[in-house]
Amino acid sequence: MTLKLYYASGACSFVPHTMLEMAGATFEPVAVKLHKNEQNSPEYQAINPRGQVPVLADEGEVITQIMAIIAYIDARFPENAFIPKDPLARARFVETLAWMNNTVHPTFTHIFMPHKFSDDEAAQGQMKRFGVGHYRKLMEELQGLVKKAHAEGRDWLGGVHCGPLDAYALTLLRWATIAGINPDDYPELWAHVQRTALVPAVARAMERERLQLSLYQPG
Amino acid sequence: MTLKLYYASGACSFVPHTMLEMAGATFEPVAVKLHKNEQNSPEYQAINPRGQVPVLADEGEVITQIMAIIAYIDARFPENAFIPKDPLARARFVETLAWMNNTVHPTFTHIFMPHKFSDDEAAQGQMKRFGVGHYRKLMEELQGLVKKAHAEGRDWLGGVHCGPLDAYALTLLRWATIAGINPDDYPELWAHVQRTALVPAVARAMERERLQLSLYQPG
Ligand SMILES: N[C@@H](CCC(=O)N[C@@H](CS)C(=O)NCC(=O)O)C(=O)O
Ligand SMILES: N[C@@H](CCC(=O)N[C@@H](CS)C(=O)NCC(=O)O)C(=O)O
Repeated sequence: MTLKLYYASGACSFVPHTMLEMAGATFEPVAVKLHKNEQNSPEYQAINPRGQVPVLADEGEVITQIMAIIAYIDARFPENAFIPKDPLARARFVETLAWMNNTVHPTFTHIFMPHKFSDDEAAQGQMKRFGVGHYRKLMEELQGLVKKAHAEGRDWLGGVHCGPLDAYALTLLRWATIAGINPDDYPELWAHVQRTALVPAVARAMERERLQLSLYQPG
Repeated sequence: MTLKLYYASGACSFVPHTMLEMAGATFEPVAVKLHKNEQNSPEYQAINPRGQVPVLADEGEVITQIMAIIAYIDARFPENAFIPKDPLARARFVETLAWMNNTVHPTFTHIFMPHKFSDDEAAQGQMKRFGVGHYRKLMEELQGLVKKAHAEGRDWLGGVHCGPLDAYALTLLRWATIAGINPDDYPELWAHVQRTALVPAVARAMERERLQLSLYQPG
């Protein structure tokens, strides 16, 4: 088998995971248990010294960074047209993807792993609190992108079929529920995410990762 | 004139700025004064509601996010081969670019604009202090990429000619000097950045932005 995906259940690696399923690729999924700190084991550090998932290995070539992995899977499975070819459409796709990756995703990291940004406990608490407020605004903005797609007659964030932007949106809203945010506060986004979860390739990835769509606990 | 680049002196917009100079593009540079908070004026928010530079406007099409702008300039000026075409080489390029954009760049934001992550003053101070230590490690890692390129016989981070990765490295090391880090602590990186600054297109962008390469003040 040539392709290996190192992933953690519920992490951002879900995005390339769904792409490989959509492409019908033959790949070996390798689970990395973040809660057991496996990402910092010498074995895993030998693969990715930054101690993060996702990693895609193709015949010994190791690719890190979700942005790069998505571009690589797109190039390797061109018939899926994951990323539009037209320069402007491509820029629009990368624009949304990059924003998810450099803004929304790190905002959740401030809530989930505040020790990455400060070793002071009080500061960590402050960042967490502030981060949840910020994350709510970002979910509102993400919902705006869903509404815009629908208003423009597109069923999915990236165009005519479900793709990496939708899988990332699912992941980011799922994280919101971990942060104590009620998904019902964003009805159009929540409906979009629930629809995404029903796409067979996405459902297969969710099953392998044993994911529940919402972990929100009221009260 | 069809292309407009909204930039701020010394900001990450320097990267597309150098690309347009390298491509010999005809473009209108529009300065946005961040210290005067112009990014949050109603006029600028109408262009980019996120209140950030860079923005590239092409005949009224507005593109945000450095990752997307770089991809778009690459597609519009293909003869410059800014981004490699081969899927693996392209993934390697995006991998480094994404890391700069989602990890190094935001770490500096914690030092320079900690209010983006907490409204608590003590927490801001803690994040700043922690951020400087983290940024030092990232400069070490960036220097490692320079060394690796040289060891592999590449003069520049992205391949055989100076490109966006080198311009981003220059920006990031220049920011380090603003954070009170001595560039001499990273001799290979510093030499690389100084060499980048001498490339005519880069020098032209620096002149327009009135940039000094190091703002480090010893003592
Ligand atoms: N910049 C990386 C971020 C990857 C990332 O944040 N991975 C998280 C999971 S979502 C991780 O592995 N965290 C474990 C850790 O940092 O210890 C990318 O875009 O791929
Ligand atoms: N994610 C954006 C980040 C852009 C960004 O951080 N821009 C900074 C300058 S380097 C900015 O405009 N800051 C002004 C502000 O946030 O108020 C990108 O990659 O383009």
